[in-house]
Amino acid sequence: MKLKIKTINFETGNTKDVVLNFKDALELGQKAGERIYIKNVKSRTLEDKYWVAIIQIDYSGTIVKQGEIGIFLDIVQENKAFKDETTLSVKPADPPDSFRFIQKKIKGQKLTSEEINSIISDAVSGSLSRIDLAAFITGVSINGMDNEEMTALTLSETRSGEIFYFGMDVFDKHSTGGVPGNKVSLIIVPIIAAAGLTIPKSSTRAITSPSGTADSMEVLAPVAFAPEELKRIVSEENACIIWGGALETAPADNILIEIERPLHMDPIGLMIPSILTKKLSLGVKKLVLDIPVGEGTKFITPDKGKQFAYLFKEIAANVGIEAECALTLAHQPIGHAVGPALEAKEALTLLRDSSAGPNSLIEKATDLAGMLLEMGGKAQKGMGQNLAKEILGSGKAYEKMKKIIEAQGGNPEIKPEDIELGPYVKEFFSSKDGYIVEVNNAIINRIAKTAGCPNSKSSGVTIIKKQGAKIKEGDLVFKIYSHSESKLRKAEKIYNATGGPIRLGGMVIERV
Amino acid sequence: MKLKIKTINFETGNTKDVVLNFKDALELGQKAGERIYIKNVKSRTLEDKYWVAIIQIDYSGTIVKQGEIGIFLDIVQENKAFKDETTLSVKPADPPDSFRFIQKKIKGQKLTSEEINSIISDAVSGSLSRIDLAAFITGVSINGMDNEEMTALTLSETRSGEIFYFGMDVFDKHSTGGVPGNKVSLIIVPIIAAAGLTIPKSSTRAITSPSGTADSMEVLAPVAFAPEELKRIVSEENACIIWGGALETAPADNILIEIERPLHMDPIGLMIPSILTKKLSLGVKKLVLDIPVGEGTKFITPDKGKQFAYLFKEIAANVGIEAECALTLAHQPIGHAVGPALEAKEALTLLRDSSAGPNSLIEKATDLAGMLLEMGGKAQKGMGQNLAKEILGSGKAYEKMKKIIEAQGGNPEIKPEDIELGPYVKEFFSSKDGYIVEVNNAIINRIAKTAGCPNSKSSGVTIIKKQGAKIKEGDLVFKIYSHSESKLRKAEKIYNATGGPIRLGGMVIERV
Repeated sequence: MKLKIKTINFETGNTKDVVLNFKDALELGQKAGERIYIKNVKSRTLEDKYWVAIIQIDYSGTIVKQGEIGIFLDIVQENKAFKDETTLSVKPADPPDSFRFIQKKIKGQKLTSEEINSIISDAVSGSLSRIDLAAFITGVSINGMDNEEMTALTLSETRSGEIFYFGMDVFDKHSTGGVPGNKVSLIIVPIIAAAGLTIPKSSTRAITSPSGTADSMEVLAPVAFAPEELKRIVSEENACIIWGGALETAPADNILIEIERPLHMDPIGLMIPSILTKKLSLGVKKLVLDIPVGEGTKFITPDKGKQFAYLFKEIAANVGIEAECALTLAHQPIGHAVGPALEAKEALTLLRDSSAGPNSLIEKATDLAGMLLEMGGKAQKGMGQNLAKEILGSGKAYEKMKKIIEAQGGNPEIKPEDIELGPYVKEFFSSKDGYIVEVNNAIINRIAKTAGCPNSKSSGVTIIKKQGAKIKEGDLVFKIYSHSESKLRKAEKIYNATGGPIRLGGMVIERV
Repeated sequence: MKLKIKTINFETGNTKDVVLNFKDALELGQKAGERIYIKNVKSRTLEDKYWVAIIQIDYSGTIVKQGEIGIFLDIVQENKAFKDETTLSVKPADPPDSFRFIQKKIKGQKLTSEEINSIISDAVSGSLSRIDLAAFITGVSINGMDNEEMTALTLSETRSGEIFYFGMDVFDKHSTGGVPGNKVSLIIVPIIAAAGLTIPKSSTRAITSPSGTADSMEVLAPVAFAPEELKRIVSEENACIIWGGALETAPADNILIEIERPLHMDPIGLMIPSILTKKLSLGVKKLVLDIPVGEGTKFITPDKGKQFAYLFKEIAANVGIEAECALTLAHQPIGHAVGPALEAKEALTLLRDSSAGPNSLIEKATDLAGMLLEMGGKAQKGMGQNLAKEILGSGKAYEKMKKIIEAQGGNPEIKPEDIELGPYVKEFFSSKDGYIVEVNNAIINRIAKTAGCPNSKSSGVTIIKKQGAKIKEGDLVFKIYSHSESKLRKAEKIYNATGGPIRLGGMVIERV
């Protein structure tokens, strides 16, 4: 069948979608979501090359008339052979082989590495539709992936994009997430780099939380870099704290995440390859994985966290990464600050003077940093945390952080006091005496996000006192910062409706 | 957030999709595939009503600028409150409850009827996205549905659309498909109607086969009718043979099928409700289900077909339909003709004079018709087929068919000889003597579809001799008809490349 291109002035993001008039679709015998081959009949360069496209159908016939084929801007801009009025040759196409491999996983069968490669390469080329990938992700959620499959998926996803090489020993730290205020990377990276190890930390922006490491770092310096700039920064400072999204690593992983997220699915079979792919793409060889456990995290019980840790270490070893895992507490925030600017400020304050605390941040950051120092041969087994505290206390980590900020184009002389907060602020005081028995992470996240996090850097919350602390009536217990007066009001409302994130109780259990 | 409508000159068919600029999406904290509430700030009629919309994101920012919200033609045409330049109030929305119920099915849990109702109603309203539904269908494919769930799904799908009432006793016949040339409905309906029973037969057009009942009937009369016309036809003739797609019955079923089809999924848990929904929507109370078994059908072995039959009868009884099932042979076509016009011609020839055969069509059609006659009290148990043959032989079925054709607006005097075939024809002759040991359905379907079926009514194939027949060198064995010379050539090529659908062998197994 010959059809004339009609450009549709819209980008779908699905570079393989085309639109047929319902009559032509009927004549071709293809339904919506099925595939056709398309070819520019005149173009020499594409003479022997058919493109596979996935069809949408214009049932009204008002946009794409019979004899036309609607091509979205994405394709027109990407390919000069597809212009308005160009005649295309069109014929029905069967689903690609990878479609059968998805069915195989849905039937509970194991996939070979060739089959996994085929799925990943068709996901990137667009030959698999979004609903095909939704079926794949659901299949993996139910039927799982074994070690060999996860290993193959990691390697396949990594090969789908750019891979960096910074030398033989590249270190990194990652967290499976779920605990608010977890700004430990802002402390760990300068400690490790100050010890002379290479740590090109790429991180995400917040997805469901009030702030990701990239959001907090962005308060101190730019975080989006092209590959060449990343190489320069790491060669200068053997470290960086950047946003991974600006690099062209592992597009396959991003494509899967774009479907997993609205489905609220994050199956282990895809989560482990996703983490390891990001690390392999940056040449990481030794990794410490922080696994927060408890309510609100991916691992409700320490046992589930431990099971995951063993599995993760095994897959990591299969792809050439030595991994150590740390199960960590997640019952309340790390430190007191939640929100991009507040977290950057808390981290910078600690780096400048480690006596400033807070203890929970010092302990967690130096514990994880110590594991990396031991893995890198900088400290004896069991002595890593001491060395990490020494580097932090000596001011060397602070000096390194200033250099990293400078290398990334920020102001190295920035002081914690300079960091802009609010400007709208609301303080909350205790109405009674008692001990804090619970700090509710979910309420903290809700208030911080309502106040404007993570898009507004200056918004966030401070939890003044945490679990176990003694409180007197009238003590300041909680602060909300917001860039917008109306958002501050909304955040306040949540505090009042929920009673706030802090629960008091008496310490005396029984009086006889 | 306030956004101005920018109309996007394209219909997606997903009436809940809107497009946001990536910056506004970031500000709202919503990703592609997630949901927002939208409301016309000025419209009084919608004052208290927020619509739920699913967002696409314009990452380029070229179509939908910051401060704009892209609305597709579907919504603009459907709702006058949404016009170009109108200001909408927009806020993030959580997934609907039904989203959680889909996750529940994916986790292998049983759904309550309230939960199933919620999924179906959100599928129809568009609050569940295509990838949500793909996840649901995959979940059902893997984890199944039990009897209570299938019953609830049937009732829920039926309630999603119009339901007809033609009186207390409405009969029908349905096939699970997979055998070529299965034009039995064109014989059964007039037999049943001639016996005085009501049989409003709604059927599908071909999906993957060369011809559906609706395609074949359309050669004799129009098949697409609005509800009022359907009621008139059935009140006049107590029968019809129409295309179900033109009615507004069970939109929920169609929405699921639109996702199942490109995924090549047809799980029992959705198939049974789908069949029963179509029947309930037409008020059917007594049903004969034809279940072809064997290669190329949905049930590879008779055992699987039988298992399905028991399950089907049970769910049917739960929703108030008395069902009888017949396992039937599917190893070769029913009759000799495959393709809309050829099948209409073969059926009409038989109705006019039952001595014209073919036997396989007479036997299968009267067998199934007999079951219905027995269920309707028109014949004693075991005597139904005799009565069906009698009605067929007496010419009463032919008279009834002419009246149905007339009621549907066709020419009742149409003769089998008048039906247009081809005009391009190719005949194939046997190159040797022997007995036919195999007739390959898959090759027949491929040739018929390549020749132009089902869109070209006049295209198709005739299988002159079938399994068991004795053939001499030079005998005519196969004919291809096509509306297009080039399609005929392509169909011929398939015949030659495959050796055709007919396999010969000697009858003598062993000579000692």
